Amino acid sequence: MQAQILFQNPLGEPTVPERVPEMDAILGKTFRVLDKGHIRVIDYMGTDASIVQAARVSYGKGTKTPSDDESLIRYLMRHRHTTPFEMCEIKLHIRIPMDHWRQWIRHRTASVNEYSTRYSEAIEDKQLTLDYQWRKQSQDNKQGSEAFLNAEGLGFDLSQGEENLHRLAQSEYDRRIRLGVAREQARKDLPLSTYTEAYWKIDLHNLMHFLSLRTDPHAQLEIRTYAEVLGNQILARWLPMTWRAFYDYRLQARTFSRQEMEVIRKLMDRPTVGLQDNGDLLQSLPSQRERQEFLAKLQGK
Amino acid sequence: MQAQILFQNPLGEPTVPERVPEMDAILGKTFRVLDKGHIRVIDYMGTDASIVQAARVSYGKGTKTPSDDESLIRYLMRHRHTTPFEMCEIKLHIRIPMDHWRQWIRHRTASVNEYSTRYSEAIEDKQLTLDYQWRKQSQDNKQGSEAFLNAEGLGFDLSQGEENLHRLAQSEYDRRIRLGVAREQARKDLPLSTYTEAYWKIDLHNLMHFLSLRTDPHAQLEIRTYAEVLGNQILARWLPMTWRAFYDYRLQARTFSRQEMEVIRKLMDRPTVGLQDNGDLLQSLPSQRERQEFLAKLQGK
Amino acid sequence: MQAQILFQNPLGEPTVPERVPEMDAILGKTFRVLDKGHIRVIDYMGTDASIVQAARVSYGKGTKTPSDDESLIRYLMRHRHTTPFEMCEIKLHIRIPMDHWRQWIRHRTASVNEYSTRYSEAIEDKQLTLDYQWRKQSQDNKQGSEAFLNAEGLGFDLSQGEENLHRLAQSEYDRRIRLGVAREQARKDLPLSTYTEAYWKIDLHNLMHFLSLRTDPHAQLEIRTYAEVLGNQILARWLPMTWRAFYDYRLQARTFSRQEMEVIRKLMDRPTVGLQDNGDLLQSLPSQRERQEFLAKLQGK
Amino acid sequence: MQAQILFQNPLGEPTVPERVPEMDAILGKTFRVLDKGHIRVIDYMGTDASIVQAARVSYGKGTKTPSDDESLIRYLMRHRHTTPFEMCEIKLHIRIPMDHWRQWIRHRTASVNEYSTRYSEAIEDKQLTLDYQWRKQSQDNKQGSEAFLNAEGLGFDLSQGEENLHRLAQSEYDRRIRLGVAREQARKDLPLSTYTEAYWKIDLHNLMHFLSLRTDPHAQLEIRTYAEVLGNQILARWLPMTWRAFYDYRLQARTFSRQEMEVIRKLMDRPTVGLQDNGDLLQSLPSQRERQEFLAKLQGK
Repeated sequence: MQAQILFQNPLGEPTVPERVPEMDAILGKTFRVLDKGHIRVIDYMGTDASIVQAARVSYGKGTKTPSDDESLIRYLMRHRHTTPFEMCEIKLHIRIPMDHWRQWIRHRTASVNEYSTRYSEAIEDKQLTLDYQWRKQSQDNKQGSEAFLNAEGLGFDLSQGEENLHRLAQSEYDRRIRLGVAREQARKDLPLSTYTEAYWKIDLHNLMHFLSLRTDPHAQLEIRTYAEVLGNQILARWLPMTWRAFYDYRLQARTFSRQEMEVIRKLMDRPTVGLQDNGDLLQSLPSQRERQEFLAKLQGK
Repeated sequence: MQAQILFQNPLGEPTVPERVPEMDAILGKTFRVLDKGHIRVIDYMGTDASIVQAARVSYGKGTKTPSDDESLIRYLMRHRHTTPFEMCEIKLHIRIPMDHWRQWIRHRTASVNEYSTRYSEAIEDKQLTLDYQWRKQSQDNKQGSEAFLNAEGLGFDLSQGEENLHRLAQSEYDRRIRLGVAREQARKDLPLSTYTEAYWKIDLHNLMHFLSLRTDPHAQLEIRTYAEVLGNQILARWLPMTWRAFYDYRLQARTFSRQEMEVIRKLMDRPTVGLQDNGDLLQSLPSQRERQEFLAKLQGK
Repeated sequence: MQAQILFQNPLGEPTVPERVPEMDAILGKTFRVLDKGHIRVIDYMGTDASIVQAARVSYGKGTKTPSDDESLIRYLMRHRHTTPFEMCEIKLHIRIPMDHWRQWIRHRTASVNEYSTRYSEAIEDKQLTLDYQWRKQSQDNKQGSEAFLNAEGLGFDLSQGEENLHRLAQSEYDRRIRLGVAREQARKDLPLSTYTEAYWKIDLHNLMHFLSLRTDPHAQLEIRTYAEVLGNQILARWLPMTWRAFYDYRLQARTFSRQEMEVIRKLMDRPTVGLQDNGDLLQSLPSQRERQEFLAKLQGK
Repeated sequence: MQAQILFQNPLGEPTVPERVPEMDAILGKTFRVLDKGHIRVIDYMGTDASIVQAARVSYGKGTKTPSDDESLIRYLMRHRHTTPFEMCEIKLHIRIPMDHWRQWIRHRTASVNEYSTRYSEAIEDKQLTLDYQWRKQSQDNKQGSEAFLNAEGLGFDLSQGEENLHRLAQSEYDRRIRLGVAREQARKDLPLSTYTEAYWKIDLHNLMHFLSLRTDPHAQLEIRTYAEVLGNQILARWLPMTWRAFYDYRLQARTFSRQEMEVIRKLMDRPTVGLQDNGDLLQSLPSQRERQEFLAKLQGK
């Protein structure tokens, strides 16, 4: 075997993989989420430069200044050339209530090792809801919640009831274990608020997909909190160019349907563009709901 | 567009896909599992003949009698030519406690639509454990259980405790809903024994992988019960040739390590083969545990 | 086993899966593509109603008229609720030059059985380029092509050269086979234009992703031709509601970046909206290239 | 954000990921394969210890000596607990003829960036077959090859023909490019022996699946050569404990069907085990082919 470099990478490919000092500084550290949850970065592979390097294998070799790198990353993001983003990988240690883990695990393109309550006794921590944290059912969004329940004493009573329930659930679990019931069966009535832990490994492309769904205002508050830590605290440190491009072309981008594009195009031909003067155009949208969605996008909501 | 048949399939490819009468007879019907769970077949695509058809595209055209079809399917199974088995697909409606659904959903290569407790109120049913159904922690298998707890009155007390816990959990849930707490938050303390429902669609190759893991004696009793219905009641009806081959070459097959193969080969050269006379050979296996595993395989356990 | 229907589906779930007569009419028929390629539908699972059915498991039960079904499908498409679309599946028989199959196969979420040139002799057909079919390298798009080479006699010469090359490649292949060279080695110099065949099975969600990439004007002409048959001839027949929604919310939709949305929002506040009067706003876009892309979207290109 | 370590890993989890010096020593270096191909390691994530770390999250905490680590890895491999192996990742730069890349790319669970012959001119190198390298079609294995064609002058003639074909294909390609034909079209008649390059990233579990299929004696010689470099030169350096376990429990393991296990079990009860004395037992195997396969496994073939 001969250690000859055959392939000349335009970046002057490093023989030792580049690391990101801002990420190395947080490895193993704990970002607390919710009352007893957390996210920790265990390891990562790749940098903004790795994405550029992979893209240049496919799309040809170019110039090499950092500003060119950022342009290329923005180009890839804008045009949904997703494969170079798969070349980065991150491994996290997550601590999260089972209820939200149930949502998390629905993202199938990741590797997972979860704490097993067949092998070990269940984690005792459960997510507590403080008296001012109870949220009202949203009226116009069947799956959502809004504001907080603030009627006199309601929150306090609910939190008290929750505490009693947690206590009873734990004492039943403990009794079963004490009497020799198999752990796999003893756990059957743990509340969904019980914390679990997992190693979770995912590539950057799929991580961004996770983030775009789970930072959405329609995502449940709790998982959104995790997603925001993942984005603002971790991805922003790890891959700053990618993070900026993701923010501009995915998180803050808006998509308009065929019918909406027709409205926009017609608006541009009107002498004045203000929608108050051109309400007739809106009537061509398929439904009242889509008219509201359209206005919300234009108004930056 | 011209409707000309260019490709001559050796099977005389049907213009209407073949159906399996035994499967059509059970479509939409309910196979009960556990106390309140079930499996129902919603739809399926493909027959044993579809596997043969796909294999012959890859591996060439052959003869055409039914016995040849079965030979080919057995050959594919034996030699792990897995892609033709991906050509069949099944869609099921599952009703299962969340605890076991947590295990089920770890199989990532399937499509899932689960009943949403954000959109709708949670299903009230919870899995009940009758007094004679409590299982003891296994001593030699950290994740398992064995026999049943039969000490005087223990099972009865445990079931009583479980019932109280279910009642309290349900009444807290109901109170939250009544007071206007968002469904997505009200559900947070539901016990894992709460039933959920899902549509679950998977291809045959991945279904067999699921079955080989979940019918294993080390799988948890509850999910094993579902897996056995899937195998014996559904797969056996749907694809009888594939089911027989799967049984012979996967479920009932045994794998021997490099070291175990050396022992077997040496045994074959000994004048007498009884392991009692050849215990010295066993010493070459790496550990006491592997010696036990080896003997268990030979003894058909 | 008891054949009791436990689950009341709002649609009055059929015990025999619904079929689509327009699809049954084309099963096994051949849609010709390129000079010697084709697409044939072998089988399919699911209808527009299956998507609705799966969505209602997740998102709750609603009303039941056909117009409600279409609204729900449009809602799912618009808000990227993708899992119900995974509940439909299609199996195709594709005949395509290896060159374009190389692009096709990059879509990983499909099941494939390809004709094996290790088991069987290679298909003799090769894609021919007629004299007026040679395309010029695009100047502003590194990966594209445009117009046709029409200089005097050039196309004719090129087609002549191609024919000679095909003849030599085939005669070398035939000689190798005749002399007993293994098929797996004899094929090594077949031109990429050699036709191959495959069974290709994919779910609807991933099929639409394939279509959105491969019907794009930047996709190569040849694979675009296949994608257009898949969309216009097959998907439009199979799932007309889904096809219309896909057309409006995906194929003909346009996405605007954070910066572009700011321009649009500011335009709406200007007294006149014509971009000729508001060129200053365009300057806030990151680059000349993005200014062009923005205008192209507004102008419906 | 607070940098507190909440989770006590039994291994005393490192804050800087462990590296493998033997791997760092070969990063970016070239392992030549075939006449002009190669494999280079670009980056990797994880060590044998990472697998242990992930397994202990799931399966509980244990002891911590290196020998315990190796036992645990062997246990995981033996019992197909595959998820901890997904926690390691490797990124390679592959240079390989398109013919064999066609086989490689069939492994769908990897990330790929391939050199694009739409963006750039095709690589000129083509795989050459020397006169003694032509292989005969296997008689008993439809997809295989064996020995070498050694009849007088045959190999020389074949290699001569190959060279002519390569020359003509290249000169047609060059002419098309020179006349302005789009690169995406000019490439259409490149021989399959043309080299391509790609970045290929895969997790360890899927890499081992690749290796178990592609180091098999039934795999084509060329891709087997790549697989052997991947195993012996790269995986053996990267994860020595995993490599040894993979060798013992996967590569050199043998699986026996239900019927074969019955024969083995009966053999063990006979006074002598030699198959020559117990040929009657073999008759219970389903076919002559399976009898041969059974003997081959026992004889270590």
